[in-house]
This record gives sequence, C-alpha cells and structure tokens, in this order.
Amino acid sequence: MKSETTASNSRQTAILLMSCPDQKGIVAKVSEFLYRHNANILHADQHQDAELKLFLMRVEWDLTQFSLDARSFAENFKPLTDELQIQWKLEFSSTRPRVAILASRHDHCLSDLLYRHRSGDLNCDIPLVISNHPENRPLADFHEIAYHEVQINLKAENPETEKKAAEAKILELLRSSQIDLVILARYMQILSPEFVKEYHHRIINIHHSFLPAFLGAKPYHRAYERGVKLIGATSHYVTEDLDDGPIIEQDVIRISHRDSVPDLVKKGKDLERLVLSRAVQWHLEHRVLIYQNRTVVFN
Amino acid sequence: MKSETTASNSRQTAILLMSCPDQKGIVAKVSEFLYRHNANILHADQHQDAELKLFLMRVEWDLTQFSLDARSFAENFKPLTDELQIQWKLEFSSTRPRVAILASRHDHCLSDLLYRHRSGDLNCDIPLVISNHPENRPLADFHEIAYHEVQINLKAENPETEKKAAEAKILELLRSSQIDLVILARYMQILSPEFVKEYHHRIINIHHSFLPAFLGAKPYHRAYERGVKLIGATSHYVTEDLDDGPIIEQDVIRISHRDSVPDLVKKGKDLERLVLSRAVQWHLEHRVLIYQNRTVVFN
Amino acid sequence: MKSETTASNSRQTAILLMSCPDQKGIVAKVSEFLYRHNANILHADQHQDAELKLFLMRVEWDLTQFSLDARSFAENFKPLTDELQIQWKLEFSSTRPRVAILASRHDHCLSDLLYRHRSGDLNCDIPLVISNHPENRPLADFHEIAYHEVQINLKAENPETEKKAAEAKILELLRSSQIDLVILARYMQILSPEFVKEYHHRIINIHHSFLPAFLGAKPYHRAYERGVKLIGATSHYVTEDLDDGPIIEQDVIRISHRDSVPDLVKKGKDLERLVLSRAVQWHLEHRVLIYQNRTVVFN
Amino acid sequence: MKSETTASNSRQTAILLMSCPDQKGIVAKVSEFLYRHNANILHADQHQDAELKLFLMRVEWDLTQFSLDARSFAENFKPLTDELQIQWKLEFSSTRPRVAILASRHDHCLSDLLYRHRSGDLNCDIPLVISNHPENRPLADFHEIAYHEVQINLKAENPETEKKAAEAKILELLRSSQIDLVILARYMQILSPEFVKEYHHRIINIHHSFLPAFLGAKPYHRAYERGVKLIGATSHYVTEDLDDGPIIEQDVIRISHRDSVPDLVKKGKDLERLVLSRAVQWHLEHRVLIYQNRTVVFN
Repeated sequence: MKSETTASNSRQTAILLMSCPDQKGIVAKVSEFLYRHNANILHADQHQDAELKLFLMRVEWDLTQFSLDARSFAENFKPLTDELQIQWKLEFSSTRPRVAILASRHDHCLSDLLYRHRSGDLNCDIPLVISNHPENRPLADFHEIAYHEVQINLKAENPETEKKAAEAKILELLRSSQIDLVILARYMQILSPEFVKEYHHRIINIHHSFLPAFLGAKPYHRAYERGVKLIGATSHYVTEDLDDGPIIEQDVIRISHRDSVPDLVKKGKDLERLVLSRAVQWHLEHRVLIYQNRTVVFN
Repeated sequence: MKSETTASNSRQTAILLMSCPDQKGIVAKVSEFLYRHNANILHADQHQDAELKLFLMRVEWDLTQFSLDARSFAENFKPLTDELQIQWKLEFSSTRPRVAILASRHDHCLSDLLYRHRSGDLNCDIPLVISNHPENRPLADFHEIAYHEVQINLKAENPETEKKAAEAKILELLRSSQIDLVILARYMQILSPEFVKEYHHRIINIHHSFLPAFLGAKPYHRAYERGVKLIGATSHYVTEDLDDGPIIEQDVIRISHRDSVPDLVKKGKDLERLVLSRAVQWHLEHRVLIYQNRTVVFN
Repeated sequence: MKSETTASNSRQTAILLMSCPDQKGIVAKVSEFLYRHNANILHADQHQDAELKLFLMRVEWDLTQFSLDARSFAENFKPLTDELQIQWKLEFSSTRPRVAILASRHDHCLSDLLYRHRSGDLNCDIPLVISNHPENRPLADFHEIAYHEVQINLKAENPETEKKAAEAKILELLRSSQIDLVILARYMQILSPEFVKEYHHRIINIHHSFLPAFLGAKPYHRAYERGVKLIGATSHYVTEDLDDGPIIEQDVIRISHRDSVPDLVKKGKDLERLVLSRAVQWHLEHRVLIYQNRTVVFN
Repeated sequence: MKSETTASNSRQTAILLMSCPDQKGIVAKVSEFLYRHNANILHADQHQDAELKLFLMRVEWDLTQFSLDARSFAENFKPLTDELQIQWKLEFSSTRPRVAILASRHDHCLSDLLYRHRSGDLNCDIPLVISNHPENRPLADFHEIAYHEVQINLKAENPETEKKAAEAKILELLRSSQIDLVILARYMQILSPEFVKEYHHRIINIHHSFLPAFLGAKPYHRAYERGVKLIGATSHYVTEDLDDGPIIEQDVIRISHRDSVPDLVKKGKDLERLVLSRAVQWHLEHRVLIYQNRTVVFN
C-alpha cells in the first residue's frame, strides 16, 4: 500500500486575527480591503459575542499575489482600524514561532511534543528545553535540542531566594533565545507574577484535571477520593491566578472503581499529552483569540 | 433557584446558503451586497473545497433593517449570482418548515422528536405522523398531531402492489399537507425511487449502525457477531442507493462482551434518538449543504 | 425487516450484594454456599479495595432450582456472614422497586424517565409524580401515573414554615405509597436533613455539571463564564451535604465559543437525561454498592 | 508538588485464563481449589455466553503463600479440568513476554510503543524491531533495541519470491529471539497464511479505520470520500482473512468537512497510537480471551 502522506502545506499564508465592537459592515469592509490588495482568502471564521457586542475574526489568505507586506499592510489597514476600532495581529505561516519547553521529571508531555515537532506536525522551532532535573537530557539530545538544567534547591536555607535565582536564569535563557511561547509540559514549579507578566498569554500549561474541578495540587488523588467517573485534563494560558487562566482545550476519559490512583495517573498521561498538544498546535496556527478570560478557538 | 430559560430567539433572520466556483472576492462582494442593503450579519461560515475549487457559504442576518424581501432579494442579487455563478437558497427563520414523521412500531425516535417539538427545540410544524402500525396513535394524540395509519399487507397476494398503493397514499398525504421534510424515524420500509425523487434531499433517515459498516438489515446482530467494541448510528439524506446517501451526523457508544444483542438494541436507542434529532435540527436551521454525496454542516 | 426485540428477561433471579474485610477464601466459601443450594450463577463481579482491605461482591443467579427463599437464605447464610463479617442485601428481580419522581417545571428528565418506564426499560413501579408546579400533570396523565402538586409558596410570610409543611406532605405521600426510591428529576428544592435521613442512599439526584466543578446554583452560567470546553452532568445519591453525595454516573459533551448559555442549557438537557437514566437503571438492577462516599457500579 | 508515582506493582501474581461449558458450580470448584492451595485472589472476572452456553473466567492471585508452581498446578488442577472440560492457560506476572515490533516508514505507533516500554507501562521485553525501511533505526538505537532492516524489493523480477524470502528472514529473526507476540505497528505488508499460522492469535495489528468499515487499503481516503463524521482505528489479532480477525479495541474521533485527507491522517495517528497501545497492554496483562472470532477483554 502506498503511503498517505501528511500535507506539504508549503503554501505561504498570512493570518489576520482581529476584534472590534460589533457593527454592520465589518466583514464587507475587511474583505473588500483584502480583495483590493489581491488576497486569495483560504479560511475565514467569525464570532459575535452578542452580550458584549464584540466581533472577532480570523482570516487566512494565500500570499502569492498579495500586494502588501507586513509594513505596508499596517499603513493601508490603518484607516479601517481607526474607523472600526479594530485591534489586530498579523501573522505569517513562514515565521516559525520560537518555543521553549519547561519540564520536570515527568517526560510524557515533553516526549510527545518533541515527537510531534520532529514529525513536522508543529510549525515552530524549539531551541531549548529547560528542566529542574537532569533525567530528560538524553531525550533532548536525541531530538538535537539544547537541554538546560536549572536546579532549584528547595532545601536551601532560603528557598525563596533559590527560586528567584532559578527564575532569573530561566528568563535569561528565554530572552537570549528570543522565545515566543513557553510550554509548561508538567513543569511542577509555580511561576512568579513577574515571569507571567513578561510572557503574558504566551505561556501554555497542562493541568491534570477537568478545571475548575481539582485545581491545585494532587488532582488525581482528589479525583479518586471524590469518586468521580471521568478524569480530565485542561490546557490553559497561565495567568497570575493559579489554574485560572483562559482554557484552550479540555478532554476527559472514563474511569471506574477498578482504577487506583496509579491507574488514574497512567490513564491521565495519555489525556494530558493529547490535550496539551492540541492547545499548542492551535496556538501555533494562530487559531486562538482571548477575551474576558475565555478563548475563541477558530478550528 | 431561578430557572435557566432557553433562548427566546424571537429575532427574525434570513439565511443565505450558497455555493460557487472558488475565486477571489466572493466574500467581499457578497458581504458588500448585504451591507449595502442594511443586513446586520449574525453568523457567517465559509468552506472551500480545495480539490474541487468550490466555495460554500452560509450567512445569517437580522432582518430588522434589511431593505429587501424575498422577491427583491432575488432581483438585486442576480447580477452577482451571474458574475460568480452562484447557486443559492434564501430561507427565513419565520417560515416554519412543515415536517412529516414516518414511523413503524418502534417509538423511541418518534417519541423523542415529538417531545423536542413540543419543547420548542425544533423550529417546524408537524402536521402529521404516518405509520404502518396502529400502536403509536396515543402518542400522536397526546401531542395533538394527526396520526395516519397506512397499512401494508405484506402477506397479500401481490405485496408489490400493496406497497405501491401504500406509497401512493403516503405521497397523497404528504402533498396535501405541503410537507417540506420527511423524517424516517425507524420506518422500516424501503421507499421507491419515485418517492425518493419527489423528496430529493428532503428525506432524513436514521440507520442503526456506523455507516458504511453494517448497511442493510439487522445491523445490531451483525455488530454483535463481528465483535465490535463500539456501536453507532448514522443520520443521512435518503437517496436511491440504500443507506448510501449524504451523511449528516454519526455517533457511537462503547459496548463490551457483556452486551447481548438486546443490550445493543437498548443502548442503540439512545444513540439513534440523539443522532437523528441533531440531524433534523441542523436541517431545520438550514445549516446543511450537500455536494458530492457529502454534507457540509455549518454549526 | 423483522424487529430486534428487547430481551424478555422473564427469568427470575436473585442478586446478592455484599461487602466484608478482605481475606482469603471469600469467593470459595460464598460460591460453595450458593452451589450447595443449587444456585445457577449468571453474573458475578468482585472488587477489592487494596487500601481499605475491603472486599465487595455482586452475584446474580437463576432461582429456578435454588433451594432457599428469602427467610431460609438468611438463616443458612448466617454462619458464613458471622465468620467473614459480611454485610449483605438480597434482592429479587421479581420485586419491582416502588419509585417516586419529584420534578419541577423542567420536564426533560421526567419525560425521559416516564418514557423509559413505559417502554419496559426500567424494572420498577412508579406510583406517583410529585411536583411544586402544575405544568407536568398532562404528561403524568398520559402515562397514567398519579400527579401530586405540592406547592411551596416562597412569598409566604414564613417561607421556612411553608417549606416544612410541603416536605411533610411529600413524606406522607412517599410513606403511604411505600416508596423505595426517590428520583429528583431536576427538582429544584433543597431537602431537609430529616428527609434525606429517612431515605438514606435512596434518593438519586441529577446535577447539571461535572461535579465537583460548579456545585450549587446556576452551573451552566458559571461554566459559560469560566470558558470550559466541555459541560457535564452528574447523578449522585443525595446526602446532607449539597451536591456532595456518592457519584453514580457522569458524562460530558463538547461545547465551543459559539454556544451561549441557552445553548448550554439545551445541550445539557440531553446529557442530564442520559446520565440520570443510567444511574436509575443501575440502582434498580442492584448494581451499585456505596462505601466511603464512593460507588462501585457492577455493570 | 510531590510527584504521583506510577504503581511499583512488584507483587508476583499468577493469572488463570479458562473457558468451559457453562454449568453449575464452576466458580465454587475453581475458587475452592485455589483457596485450598492458599491463593490470595486479587481479581476475578467471569463471563457467560448464554447462547453458546460457554463460561469464561480470568482469576489473578498473589503468589506469596501459594503452594503450587507451574508444574504442580497442572497436576493438581487436572481432575477439575477433566470434570468440567476446562481449557486453560496459566501465566505469571514475573514472566515478561518477548515482543517484536514490525514497522514500516510510519513511526507514530512504533515511537509510542517504545516510549511506553521505556516508561515501564508495558510489561514485556522488546528484543527487536524489524522494518522494511531504514528510517527508524535511530529511534530504535535511542531505545537500545536491535533494529533489523529486511527490505522487500517489489520492483524485483519476481516480487513474490522477494516477499517470501523476506518473510523467511523475519521468521528466522522471530524464532531465534523466541518471540511471544508480534506487533504490526503500521507494517504495510500482508503476511502469508503460513506466517499467521505460526503466530496464531499472537500477532496484533492496527487498522486505520473503524472495522468492518473501510477494510483494505487507503481507509482515510475512502472515509473522506464517503463523508463520514467520525474516523476510527481498530486493533485486532491477525488471521488469514485480511482485517477480519478478532477485534481487541476500537475508538473513534470526530471530524468535519473542514478536514482534508491529510488532516484525517494526522488526527488518525493519535487514535492509532492509543488503540494499539491499549490492545497490546491488555494482551500483555493476559486480559484477552478469544472465542468465535470475538474477544472478551477482562479489564
């Protein structure tokens, strides 16, 4: 049997993510603008929040005959953004976001993301993996990605100083590698508000429960104790409030009384991998818009 | 606790379903046309079939300030449809489609549809139920819907003549009630090509398997014998080829070796009700476009 | 096509539900006891809680040749229950539990349960429906089930007295109808501890969220605000702590940013019906054992 | 946060898989036998096929105080197996099955299985990977597993001779490594009846459709053309009839009109990995019994 190959997707596209107060004529005006500059629209998706009277849109077009570049787009789009009070971002499929993965000892999410990256399923560069443990270095080596161990000695005299120093080192690594997106692949440390602020809506975490159930520590233990019949995983942007950021993706799996806590941990690993990888992929494809601590995922 | 009420949705809207050869400027031109006539777009959804170079769109707008009615819409839209070779349909939320349900002895789908209709979840009128059995008359009576029993004596000397006569009676009932949509709610008779032709893409059936697996008779028995681990249900438009029409919705449910054939039948009933009702609702909301024996469901 | 009929299941069976401290030989001794008295075992299911060193079992056998009745079973089983410290219950498939449904204005769960009962899918008698509203009387009438309206005037001078009086009336109805199981089919009133105590582990509720997320009022509103990607429903035994009783069944359904609160309410209704009916069916088939505020569901 | 560790599960256990004609007293006699020899039963699961009057059972017990070894078990169990016509297999958790993975260019299933093996989630040894392509050697190297490339030159003058020679080489490798289980991890070659016979019910394949839908080649293409709303994957034992062996596990994932064939391939990869790994794990835990071309999975 001849193989079914994944799409080459070599086509160069631009993606416009925008939001503005809802009003008549937005689609007409924006699509007329794109048409006038010779955009061949491939995908367009809109959402109206009736309560907030907010309009959100994602448009993706082929760049082959498009007559504007990033700079001239901004100039030419300005009259319209002024008129309609549009907030917008323009992304190009040719620009590969730079991603750092932060991990702990657990390797299931890390391993999965590195596999997907190697397979060409994640459109990004991953210049580095950072961990507070040494165990995952061989995995990073196999994928030819730099591995930085930033230990945090929590038994030090002053653990807070330790944590602060470790965070400073991590930030330095992220900055010098010009990182666009930080993935917490079961990284078990809580980040400071300063860290979160610097990567505002650019840190994706995987929490091993169906949020808002079991936020905080040891969700599988607590799920077991509560006797739930499904366990979940949640991928969200990290904000200053622990486990309370905008949710990108969630899923669940059925369990039964036969499942002990270690069984939940094991079943949950598959769920965490899937949920995190979907969220990362949608972010990298510029499909996610955030408003009111919620996400719109145009997929 | 105060109740969470379902939406009043009293807003009058128009829905345009269209398809045309893919080319630049379609969205711009159509949305400009709607904007010019003062449409307040509520939802818009597009799809491009890259292989067939086909563009499909559903647009829904508020009619409050819209300046055209059905007739003047056609006139004014004509230059554009000529230019872009658009095939289109215009629907109004105020026009309640007229639906007939054909049923057999089985009452789970019939019962479910009548319940949803009574609850206001299906935007249609149901002037009649037709069955080849008497059993479901009290159910129809409770919902104050006319019940027509059209028996087919398959033990008659000439069963084909019997069937033909029965179909003629049914068609007469459908025509005189000006039926827009026929739902086969586990109606166990095969319809003639003439019948299907008259209600082309306006007959929705529920098949109790995950098509194309187990097409034809006794799918639960065959699923049991094959030892599958999930059973399914499929809702599709009826075409001349049995169980081969465009699929609108499918779903599955997990089974195990503990489930006998009667258990599959019982579990399947819940699935059939859900799958059929979703398909019917999407059809009634004008969310379904058909091409190449496939459906696009804009939901 | 000839119909696939649901099982007649006319076979008379006994069901033993038991738990005891885990130790060697339990299965050997209990099954030897049943074999000695000529039981033909149809189903047997065990569970060990390793942490609590607890053994739980459900055994169902054909009564055709069984040599004991309820009374002589107790006598003959006593030596073994003493030796192994067994707690047990013996149920007979021929004894149809007597069920009361408490409902509010919402009719989706009530309607579904009455339909399943009429179809023969629930092995119970339903002598009465109680509601604090008049709306669902025609539905009960159609199913030929007595409908008792017990209004609670919350605008009365002393609403607590009103509530107490209403509960007294309900209890009187339940007692005089010798009710074994109370189903809260979206009954929106909180029951007093005395009420719950009298029907200890014999009240099943449906909560319209994935517990322990969104316990309390207006879960769909809060799910919408939190921006979750799945909504859930939970069926549980009612205890004195609101929404905190042993969970029997849960399920979820996917939603998206397109879904408003009324959409969640509508989608949730299907979920609530399924989850509640599964829990009720398992309870009626004596498949549920409770320990440590958790359930073992032998299905 | 302290980690939730997966279970050590260092406990030594025995697993008895048995089937016999259904009759009274089986459980009593077998459990008495085990009790007499001091088995501490950890799990027991039974199934009766009412139609075939067949009884199937899986029992797992702690070996700590058990008084028999494999040989004396057979001797002592013989009177009972003769009396009840029991067919049985005894397995020990301490015996790690020897597994060979056959792969093609596709690496998603191979990569996943090797990851799970390294994580300790699969209780087996994997002495070798065999492929008709060189690409996956580095992956095997990383996991320190021998990689054997057995090319099949289908452009050779006599491709049948080529295939036969390749199979002979593979069989030689399997025999010399004393392989108990062969996993076809998207291995795209059809095995000869002789090969299948030698590893009767010891070859597990993953087919990328919801069988029996789309058996044979290019299932994703055909799923796309048929316009299904869910795609599936099926893991089954290989028999002489292509894609027709006993099904161990199946699952599905939702797709929409937005998904092109490459999208199906991509989404399907996640499904294939999950479905295959579950089937392999259940086989390795001796949870699967086969009869009538169906499986009973005691999980």
